[in-house]
Amino acid sequence: MISSVNAIKKIESVKFETLTEQLNIENALNRTLAHDLITPINMPPFRQSAMDGYAIKLTNSNTYNIIDESKAGDGRNINLNPGEAARIFTGAMVPNNADTVVIQENVTKDSGAITITKRPEQFDNIRPIGEQVKRGEIVLRKGIKLNPAAIGFLAGIGIQNVIVYKSPKVSMVITGNELQKAGQELEEGKIFESNSVMLEAALKKININEISIFKTRDTFNETKETIAKSLDESDVVLISGGISVGDYDFVQEALKVNEVDEIFYKVNQKPGKPLWFGRKGDQFVFGLPGNPASALSCFYIYVTPLLNRLMGSQSFHLPKIKSRTLSGYKNNTGKTLFLKGILKNNEVEILHGQQSSMLHSFASSNVLVRIPSDTKLINAGNEVECILLNT
Amino acid sequence: MISSVNAIKKIESVKFETLTEQLNIENALNRTLAHDLITPINMPPFRQSAMDGYAIKLTNSNTYNIIDESKAGDGRNINLNPGEAARIFTGAMVPNNADTVVIQENVTKDSGAITITKRPEQFDNIRPIGEQVKRGEIVLRKGIKLNPAAIGFLAGIGIQNVIVYKSPKVSMVITGNELQKAGQELEEGKIFESNSVMLEAALKKININEISIFKTRDTFNETKETIAKSLDESDVVLISGGISVGDYDFVQEALKVNEVDEIFYKVNQKPGKPLWFGRKGDQFVFGLPGNPASALSCFYIYVTPLLNRLMGSQSFHLPKIKSRTLSGYKNNTGKTLFLKGILKNNEVEILHGQQSSMLHSFASSNVLVRIPSDTKLINAGNEVECILLNT
Repeated sequence: MISSVNAIKKIESVKFETLTEQLNIENALNRTLAHDLITPINMPPFRQSAMDGYAIKLTNSNTYNIIDESKAGDGRNINLNPGEAARIFTGAMVPNNADTVVIQENVTKDSGAITITKRPEQFDNIRPIGEQVKRGEIVLRKGIKLNPAAIGFLAGIGIQNVIVYKSPKVSMVITGNELQKAGQELEEGKIFESNSVMLEAALKKININEISIFKTRDTFNETKETIAKSLDESDVVLISGGISVGDYDFVQEALKVNEVDEIFYKVNQKPGKPLWFGRKGDQFVFGLPGNPASALSCFYIYVTPLLNRLMGSQSFHLPKIKSRTLSGYKNNTGKTLFLKGILKNNEVEILHGQQSSMLHSFASSNVLVRIPSDTKLINAGNEVECILLNT
Repeated sequence: MISSVNAIKKIESVKFETLTEQLNIENALNRTLAHDLITPINMPPFRQSAMDGYAIKLTNSNTYNIIDESKAGDGRNINLNPGEAARIFTGAMVPNNADTVVIQENVTKDSGAITITKRPEQFDNIRPIGEQVKRGEIVLRKGIKLNPAAIGFLAGIGIQNVIVYKSPKVSMVITGNELQKAGQELEEGKIFESNSVMLEAALKKININEISIFKTRDTFNETKETIAKSLDESDVVLISGGISVGDYDFVQEALKVNEVDEIFYKVNQKPGKPLWFGRKGDQFVFGLPGNPASALSCFYIYVTPLLNRLMGSQSFHLPKIKSRTLSGYKNNTGKTLFLKGILKNNEVEILHGQQSSMLHSFASSNVLVRIPSDTKLINAGNEVECILLNT
């Protein structure tokens, strides 16, 4: 048995080779950049007017003849002589020999000429070439997660493809003779299988979409063969159930004959004690409890950070915050507890129905409250660690 | 000109009819439930063993003959006589006339009989029928957002389809003669168009996937016709650019002839002053600034809550937290500011490069810091409101 803290350290420190792929920026949202990115152009690429107004070469005079117009998108170079002005609009190219844009509110216009009523400073309202970024400069660093702003920024500098870390292919192996597919009347002694659809949703939430689902009956041979098949098809395998020590739990033995090496088995925690983690080369395998709520807890605490690491993420854990609890909680188990809770206005309500079979209370939770194994009592008003689930 | 606070109030209070649709639970992740949901079965559906051990009818005796076995998934009813035990596993059906499961660690086994070494209480380790939820009970309320736990819970009670609020179809209308498609050398006076791919990413992030993109040149007729087409195809239209008062900004007039009624125009904020919001029946239109960073700010502050409301969400704004700022900031604009920032360890760094044209600093931000219009000075160490962008 390993402590939860040490199990998490194992997840944080396993080594592997990351894989990368090239994606069009339209498909790269939430992916992590695998290289430093250099801009091929200056932004702005030309001297750009920041306002609607008049471009001039600023002299002592306040009167300028309007001789032309530059609107956004015009590619024509206008030549201004001293004493001349060009009507100009936001985003338009500033004439070569102009040095100032005077905004339209600060001039009066009369028969083809403007008179400045409030004098600008030289260079006012002109965005110089490369003010935002300069050609050849590193503009986004390796390891950054591409949010909508980053996607837009890449489009703006004309980048269409980026190298990002690959998302792992994930297989699930669902064990349990008691599990029945939805759609028919429940047979005596059976329950509806829910882990596959639940874990699929949890995977999609962190942008993993290549998911295969295998089901196996509780025999050693079928378990062994199904695990072999899942290893052929994926980078990470999540096994649901069959990992306890009951007479019909064949997963541990089936992993051994498939040459998957154990990294840890059994974590001093509640829920999720019978968690198994191991590897075969650069493939990773989790043996999750069959119980849905326990499986999902383990997914958030252990599987998510490993998957995020494989995807190149630098902040790979779910975010945590400290918050005051509205009610007390006794921990006489000597285990680390992960309790379903609702965080609201920086206070957390620890929910009833913490038994490991209770997926119902999980459905309305937005945090898991972590109670360390050596904390015997939490009083109402104490600060507790909340792991945020909805990010 | 309207204050930012009042503009947000308008977004929060516009009325409309919400639409619903039926979805398979596999496709319902992150969607909001449009009806109270009643469970068609008890959970557990039968008396279930919570542990591996032996089912007995508890008597004064400590010795019981093992006469049968009940494993998970077995649908067979075992009849126990007094003094008899059945081997039983976690999740398995408890024999009808048994009332206690004694765990395997608390018995010794010898030639077909067990002897209890530590006496259980009557009813120990048996999950009664309907302990988690009872048939006919409301188990999930209208308005709940379906997370992976809720999806798993629905699967577990045998529900395959749910009624959820419809996601709106969104169109974008991109205006601006200066905009060039990526893929070719940038022409003189042009910039690469980036708002469509950026806003598409932002929409996908909140699970809106039915997106159409229209582009129009800056003429009144084309703008008018493109807006008409976008209104034919969608519930919400986002127009990028063309909403200022420049001589080539035709959007406002084109909206008028398309009978879209203004709700507000111009917000006392930076960035994003020329924001326009209106409606035509139950269709909504935003006129966003052409500038990418300004457009994205407005998307997060105003468009996101409206879209979330249309999708039935009850907490429709991006989440906010209070945090200490690492540096001061002067606000002599009299406007509400939305500043790009990086929140880390509950402290926020307000970034350089706040000009509205700077999408670059937005790419590395995870919050927008809101400075109210009447706050003239923020000192380092002051608490500021941070709007979280990565949720």
